[in-house]
Amino acid sequence: MSDVQTLPQTTIDSDVAWRSINAIRFLSIDAVERANSGHPGAPMGLAPTAYALWQHVLKHAPGTPGWVDRDRVVLSAGHASMLLYSMLHLTGYDLSMDEIKDFRQWDSKTPGHPEYGLTAGVEATTGPLGQGLGNAVGFALAEKILANTFNRPGHEIINHKTYAICSDGDMMEGVAAEAASLAGTLQLGKLVVIYDDNQISIEGDTDKAFREDVSARYEAYGFHIVEPVDGNDPEGIVNALKAANDEPDKPTLVTVRSVIGFGSPNLAGTGAVHGKAMGGDEVALTRTQLGWEYEPFDIPDDVYEHMQAGVKRGQELSDDWHSRFGAYKDEHPELSKRLHQDIHGLLPEGWDDGLNRLVGSIDAPIATRAVSGEALHAITPKLPRLIGGSADLAESNNTEVEGRGSFSPELLEGRNLHFGVREHGMGAVSNGMALHGGVIPYAATFLIFSDYMRPAIRVGALSHAPCIWIFTHDSIGLGEDGPTHQPISQLMGLRMIPNLTVIRPADADETFEAWRIAIENKSGPTALILTRQNLPQLSAIGAQSFARGYVQRGAYVIADTDSDPDVVIIGTGSETQLALGAALKLQEDGVAARAVSMPSWELFQQQPEDYRESVLPRNVRARVSVEAGTTIGWERYTGFDGACIGIDRYGASAPGDTVMANLGFTVDNVVETARSLL
Amino acid sequence: MSDVQTLPQTTIDSDVAWRSINAIRFLSIDAVERANSGHPGAPMGLAPTAYALWQHVLKHAPGTPGWVDRDRVVLSAGHASMLLYSMLHLTGYDLSMDEIKDFRQWDSKTPGHPEYGLTAGVEATTGPLGQGLGNAVGFALAEKILANTFNRPGHEIINHKTYAICSDGDMMEGVAAEAASLAGTLQLGKLVVIYDDNQISIEGDTDKAFREDVSARYEAYGFHIVEPVDGNDPEGIVNALKAANDEPDKPTLVTVRSVIGFGSPNLAGTGAVHGKAMGGDEVALTRTQLGWEYEPFDIPDDVYEHMQAGVKRGQELSDDWHSRFGAYKDEHPELSKRLHQDIHGLLPEGWDDGLNRLVGSIDAPIATRAVSGEALHAITPKLPRLIGGSADLAESNNTEVEGRGSFSPELLEGRNLHFGVREHGMGAVSNGMALHGGVIPYAATFLIFSDYMRPAIRVGALSHAPCIWIFTHDSIGLGEDGPTHQPISQLMGLRMIPNLTVIRPADADETFEAWRIAIENKSGPTALILTRQNLPQLSAIGAQSFARGYVQRGAYVIADTDSDPDVVIIGTGSETQLALGAALKLQEDGVAARAVSMPSWELFQQQPEDYRESVLPRNVRARVSVEAGTTIGWERYTGFDGACIGIDRYGASAPGDTVMANLGFTVDNVVETARSLL
Repeated sequence: MSDVQTLPQTTIDSDVAWRSINAIRFLSIDAVERANSGHPGAPMGLAPTAYALWQHVLKHAPGTPGWVDRDRVVLSAGHASMLLYSMLHLTGYDLSMDEIKDFRQWDSKTPGHPEYGLTAGVEATTGPLGQGLGNAVGFALAEKILANTFNRPGHEIINHKTYAICSDGDMMEGVAAEAASLAGTLQLGKLVVIYDDNQISIEGDTDKAFREDVSARYEAYGFHIVEPVDGNDPEGIVNALKAANDEPDKPTLVTVRSVIGFGSPNLAGTGAVHGKAMGGDEVALTRTQLGWEYEPFDIPDDVYEHMQAGVKRGQELSDDWHSRFGAYKDEHPELSKRLHQDIHGLLPEGWDDGLNRLVGSIDAPIATRAVSGEALHAITPKLPRLIGGSADLAESNNTEVEGRGSFSPELLEGRNLHFGVREHGMGAVSNGMALHGGVIPYAATFLIFSDYMRPAIRVGALSHAPCIWIFTHDSIGLGEDGPTHQPISQLMGLRMIPNLTVIRPADADETFEAWRIAIENKSGPTALILTRQNLPQLSAIGAQSFARGYVQRGAYVIADTDSDPDVVIIGTGSETQLALGAALKLQEDGVAARAVSMPSWELFQQQPEDYRESVLPRNVRARVSVEAGTTIGWERYTGFDGACIGIDRYGASAPGDTVMANLGFTVDNVVETARSLL
Repeated sequence: MSDVQTLPQTTIDSDVAWRSINAIRFLSIDAVERANSGHPGAPMGLAPTAYALWQHVLKHAPGTPGWVDRDRVVLSAGHASMLLYSMLHLTGYDLSMDEIKDFRQWDSKTPGHPEYGLTAGVEATTGPLGQGLGNAVGFALAEKILANTFNRPGHEIINHKTYAICSDGDMMEGVAAEAASLAGTLQLGKLVVIYDDNQISIEGDTDKAFREDVSARYEAYGFHIVEPVDGNDPEGIVNALKAANDEPDKPTLVTVRSVIGFGSPNLAGTGAVHGKAMGGDEVALTRTQLGWEYEPFDIPDDVYEHMQAGVKRGQELSDDWHSRFGAYKDEHPELSKRLHQDIHGLLPEGWDDGLNRLVGSIDAPIATRAVSGEALHAITPKLPRLIGGSADLAESNNTEVEGRGSFSPELLEGRNLHFGVREHGMGAVSNGMALHGGVIPYAATFLIFSDYMRPAIRVGALSHAPCIWIFTHDSIGLGEDGPTHQPISQLMGLRMIPNLTVIRPADADETFEAWRIAIENKSGPTALILTRQNLPQLSAIGAQSFARGYVQRGAYVIADTDSDPDVVIIGTGSETQLALGAALKLQEDGVAARAVSMPSWELFQQQPEDYRESVLPRNVRARVSVEAGTTIGWERYTGFDGACIGIDRYGASAPGDTVMANLGFTVDNVVETARSLL
């Protein structure tokens, strides 16, 4: 166990510097102690690293935390939240000591894990391990794309780095591995991964489960590897971080050999200091060992003064940038206007002209995935910041936009992304792009593989990151690939994620409108659920005429009778045609049947009560839902007296029509089911 | 593009050998053509590899495919299913030509992706990429554990290898990276990963998204790296596969440089041959190029004869093993009896004595995760094949069994596994262990992180792999860690996975019974959903007396009135106490309130109609559900006229009691909600 007295001498080894480092440690220790909950170990070990990064390397402006060209720090090891909160508080961000004291309390700005949007200076919501590193790759990718789009000779308007602070756990997670491999391939030279190699995870020595050579692995990905540095050597850390500049075409891995719980006589270097308060006695011993004579939450003035040097420097940096931006604006008025729009998420006038032209233009049967491809082609010319790709299924997902090229180190102006077979990494990277801003990311795979990226979808929704997820091959209708590839639980599973808007359009026009909604949704992600197989246009098979705004309401009547309905049949996506066909057939037989298309539960639930009642009258209890997925959830709309046509088993490998018919998805079965309720 | 005439000369380069290799190719091509669906490219490229493996390396017995000491082959690249079906058919497994002709048709044994249990010789259900490699690690781990458990000097009863055939996509997936890192750490020397390095994925050249040095990465994991070998050099492949023996303490990576779609003049080496039928013209050209003069599905007799040499050899190998097992049995009767039980999934008499003693023994409040830990300690002495661990949360998940040691290369008799922070890899590895047999794997993490391993949970359920998943910290009740760690959609999301039994016990006795059910469930996985926080024993707070068998029924009445109930309140897990408390309070006020504990939806739904009616009478429509998760789904039991107390937002960081109370989980709120329905 090291002792503070044995710390190496460095040129930044002033008394106030070391006391600042200890201030970071004790703010973290004391906040955890007060909450009697939290993670003191990592902040104690990482304090010198954070000090080195924020004070000597980072380009940031605490007074204007939204400055577009700031460096980003993503604390992938989100459990070390008090490290970040301590840094934000000490370096002059808008985070008061009262908030620090309210760590992990109801309604504070200092929740257990950092939350984007809640606390100024927090760049990403982290905690679920590996996600933050993936986000950081997305930040660096967005930066590279924006730099390529907006920088001009003599005008380096976009030029910033992204630092990810990662624990052993982050390095073990597959999502981080996927993202790092992509970062190496794409040569994201402004990404710096700081690996807190403290040899300890919760179950003890990392030797138990993690013996790999992390540096060699990152070298294999194409990273620049900096010689590991002592976690208590701030100058060494500064030099290591600056060494990232030596290889501008490679992302950099900086390994910091820290001691978890550094300074605690009995707990340093053990898993016991990772995730709970140390207890008063051990805190007192740690105060003695580190020579920290201050009371909890008592920070000496000279430490504040020292730590807040960055406020003025940041203001200067930001002022300088704004003055350079002024010159850029003069020389490139159109580009600067577009940068302003893109950064602030504003939609250019006429962005949806292409979409508007498409609505109503398709008569023949077509797969909604193909319609989605048309929408992308129609939108991107006017909204080039809509950028994305697929996890190696671009042709199947219809996500490649012709003429836009493939983004690569050799073609930085390419705007089709290739994520590789890395759904989870794709999710985390896309979230990072969305949080960075300036781009609207879309990302695609088969619906079944949304499960692979579900943690990223969830944390993105929690973060209000406006990604557009494109999930095709959305049911057993995909056919021969069989049960391994046929989603059953995935569609309803996505609906259960708060702040994710899920839209499963039934035909071309609904798909175009779904895209409009997705682009306009800035408060969270949108998932588009699309078919592999062709679908008829509802209007061509007897639906009432379609109008813009219908999909926005979540559900609407597509076939009705003059009288009150005896039965209501609700369909989504590819099964809407069955709901419609059955209603029309029942009508022929004199049954007052209504058909409802319900592309989006979330949008429908946001409608006023009277609208919902007008679509699904409460007193009509004979109701049938038709959706090729789990029936769990559908009783919300069918109740005890209705029926759900769905799938509560695995699918089967056979031609899609066969599987659909054999599992009950026929007009006849819908008619029969409806009749059984009357 | 290579040409068959330029193939290297090898000692196994006989005419019939090459025609056998082409037979593999054309069975695959023709089956895909007939189905007009499937993946011909990989089988065409991998045919020499498969030939080399099955004919010259593999220890297998086509006539007794269940022989316990066989080598296992996991086709992680499950889309290459026709490669496997071709091999099984040609080498004499029970897979007829009619089944080959029925590729991808309803009810055939040859679905689009291989399905375990459906087709003899298929060791794992694969297709979702990366899972198979993870499964293979589990096979090799189970082998190592069984060898350590059962082998004795002079008796090598368990000694077999596991081969995983992997595509570029497998190598890109994070789940495979996690599992490979674990395999390196655990020095699983009998694992051989065959990497089909064909430089092509669906979007084209792997250069687009995957530039890493895979060999260097696997070396960093601790693998033995064999020099890459030409995919058209069967002898070289044989030698490479046998080189795995050179380093018995390391898993081996064999990279095969193959050509996707080899033999197709126009499609070889392109993504176009990956995932669809080539079309008649190209098939004809390929026949010409490879000199294959036979009609579709016409296999020459000498090819059959050549390929089925393994039938006799396999019988000899298996006979020899059985004779050696006889000698083992004589010398080690108890061990051999236990091996028989373990392999066949038989439970030893009295296996649940420990559990039985525990039921009814706990009075004070306790967290169900702690109860689960007690159950593990009670079961494992009599059922030592129950083996598992956690994704680095053992202390929090209560999964470490004292006295059993930690499995490591240095302590092969350790029986606590350390999966590292690799939930997804843990899931795939555990599935592989279950499919291998001889062990009952359990694996644990926080419920929120079940999302990370959801694809493995799903494919395990589809495969009928009887893993036990332990998910603790099951709600906002976990408190301060906040919304990043608080599950909302996860519990209901698991219920939607077909063939997964989800049990969320309400107190200690329910938890013990949940463990009994999990151990006895051999047809699929069981998920145990457990609290972080202490719960009172239901019997201590006024519930009717508990009896064995109640949990098995999925739901049962815990408080009732003499008359028919006016209102039924249903709770699960930690919220059952609220349902009970509210019912008792309502009863005091003269309301005929019933409380129901519903630990398992799946088990309840399997009950006969009259039992379900007796618990939840159809005519009682005033119903309240109380569960700290999404309300989606609960209308199945509450209908239009009931109410769901749940959470359709994210949680919050604060002490658990505070979060629970602030989000409506109080007896008063349940009472008030119930009253509003009357």
